[in-house]
Amino acid sequence: MTESEGQGSRERYRAQVREEIKQHAWRQIATAGVNALSLNAIAKQVGMSGPALYRYFASRDDLITALIRDAYQSLADTVRAAATPPATTDVPALAAPIATTSATSASVAAPAAGVATTAGAADTTAVTDIAAGAGATSAAVTRAITGTTTLGAAVPAAATSTTPAPATTNAPTTPNADPNTVTDLAKLAHAIRDWARADPQRYFLIYGTPVPGYHAPEDTTAISTQVMTALLDACAALPPTTTPATHFDIHLVTHRDWTDHPAPAATLHRALSFWTRLHGVLSLELAGHFTGMKFDPDLLITDELNALIDQ
Amino acid sequence: MTESEGQGSRERYRAQVREEIKQHAWRQIATAGVNALSLNAIAKQVGMSGPALYRYFASRDDLITALIRDAYQSLADTVRAAATPPATTDVPALAAPIATTSATSASVAAPAAGVATTAGAADTTAVTDIAAGAGATSAAVTRAITGTTTLGAAVPAAATSTTPAPATTNAPTTPNADPNTVTDLAKLAHAIRDWARADPQRYFLIYGTPVPGYHAPEDTTAISTQVMTALLDACAALPPTTTPATHFDIHLVTHRDWTDHPAPAATLHRALSFWTRLHGVLSLELAGHFTGMKFDPDLLITDELNALIDQ
Repeated sequence: MTESEGQGSRERYRAQVREEIKQHAWRQIATAGVNALSLNAIAKQVGMSGPALYRYFASRDDLITALIRDAYQSLADTVRAAATPPATTDVPALAAPIATTSATSASVAAPAAGVATTAGAADTTAVTDIAAGAGATSAAVTRAITGTTTLGAAVPAAATSTTPAPATTNAPTTPNADPNTVTDLAKLAHAIRDWARADPQRYFLIYGTPVPGYHAPEDTTAISTQVMTALLDACAALPPTTTPATHFDIHLVTHRDWTDHPAPAATLHRALSFWTRLHGVLSLELAGHFTGMKFDPDLLITDELNALIDQ
Repeated sequence: MTESEGQGSRERYRAQVREEIKQHAWRQIATAGVNALSLNAIAKQVGMSGPALYRYFASRDDLITALIRDAYQSLADTVRAAATPPATTDVPALAAPIATTSATSASVAAPAAGVATTAGAADTTAVTDIAAGAGATSAAVTRAITGTTTLGAAVPAAATSTTPAPATTNAPTTPNADPNTVTDLAKLAHAIRDWARADPQRYFLIYGTPVPGYHAPEDTTAISTQVMTALLDACAALPPTTTPATHFDIHLVTHRDWTDHPAPAATLHRALSFWTRLHGVLSLELAGHFTGMKFDPDLLITDELNALIDQ
């Protein structure tokens, strides 16, 4: 046996033992919770001395990190498999569809003053403030929010009349414009739900009650970012939002350092709503809060996501 | 000292010791998590033998139940204090405002056939199916969903023309009709958020990762119902929804045994959305998932609730 063959075989053995330890850890978590995780107990189960086991995982935190990393990786794979990549559909990639759709309305050339009349008073002030602070025009800030030069709903031709119209009346598209992308978003949510229901402990390890005393290392964040990027891609492929920009949309223009995604702030907002709404229903479902209520949480999830697309 | 005075003093002492044990338990939960809760460790801390402590709490589960009950009670008190009771505002109680507001539109007398044209095809079929199965008219089922005889958006006068109009175009009220109730809903959400942030462990004990092996007794459900009833009251005071009934609204007509509240299904739906959306943002915030993202979760919560009212 050559030196590199010996090394390869040692590495395979090491990976195999680590995998075995992790399986025991998951069983302990299911039985007694992650806080009760004991490396010594696992060592006994795999027929190893405590110190021998510590050669595979340096500490309880090291083991938890490995489990969290596996869980995120599995979720990211699931989300990527469920989210149809924009390149393989008829939907143009990322910000492109937003600009294209809005260009069909008469409002794209509306001046910044026109934008101001569309938005609520508070939103308009905020856009102006951000623009002044950043040395940019209001139109430029608006573009950062929606990907177009108009704020939320397109400025309707009828807006010059004295009749007040609801914000969505003159939306350039019907709310559920593209059945393909709508289906994809629901498909994505249901894939995540199936993944979570297959192993609720795994879901709760990453999204449940934090483990006291445990601190995730920096590179765990990099893996969780993969999940967010897949959500952002899915939201970027949706028809543009038809509601006026909110305070949170405007806030996200200057609070978006957490992603390199080129999508406008309104898309970041949708991805955050997708994440928090799905987590809200899913975590309460998995924790058994709906058990006595007997309704179908799947229908609630579908509605929560449809409402997101109507916005 | 009379016998009853002695008994009263013994009961006060017992309550005091139980309180002291619970305080130690909360500290243990914060340090090591609820799964690591140890009655023997607490006994040592309060200077008591294990068997002596078991006279105050019969088991670990008994202690956890007491903590969960305290947490729910505190949350229910917070929610009740934040939710302005309908009787003390200008908003009529429960289902009344829905009927009153809708009565101002021309659509209340619309026949069941008119309902069918307003709703989406799938929803209409479902309403008809439920009605047939229950031996009721479609209009009666529709009333169970929205509290009116029309489904979601009122049937607009213009609906007889050949021009298709978005569902919300002819809504009888502007979406944010009543600024008082809107403020109350946000006030309620922020009160719950403040309560949760003041003691995240308490929030996670009732809404976080389930404790392996622990089963809540029946009467815990009764306390959690108080929280839901307060949410339902707040949602019942909102302007009626202007969107067509969804599959979940229809589903709730026959899946509402979990509450005695007289509100229509659409209001039950709103209360569930309020709960799950707020929990989605709040639990991720408390678990630190937004820490590196640096946006203000409060603005996201406000938007999520406003979107609920616009529906």
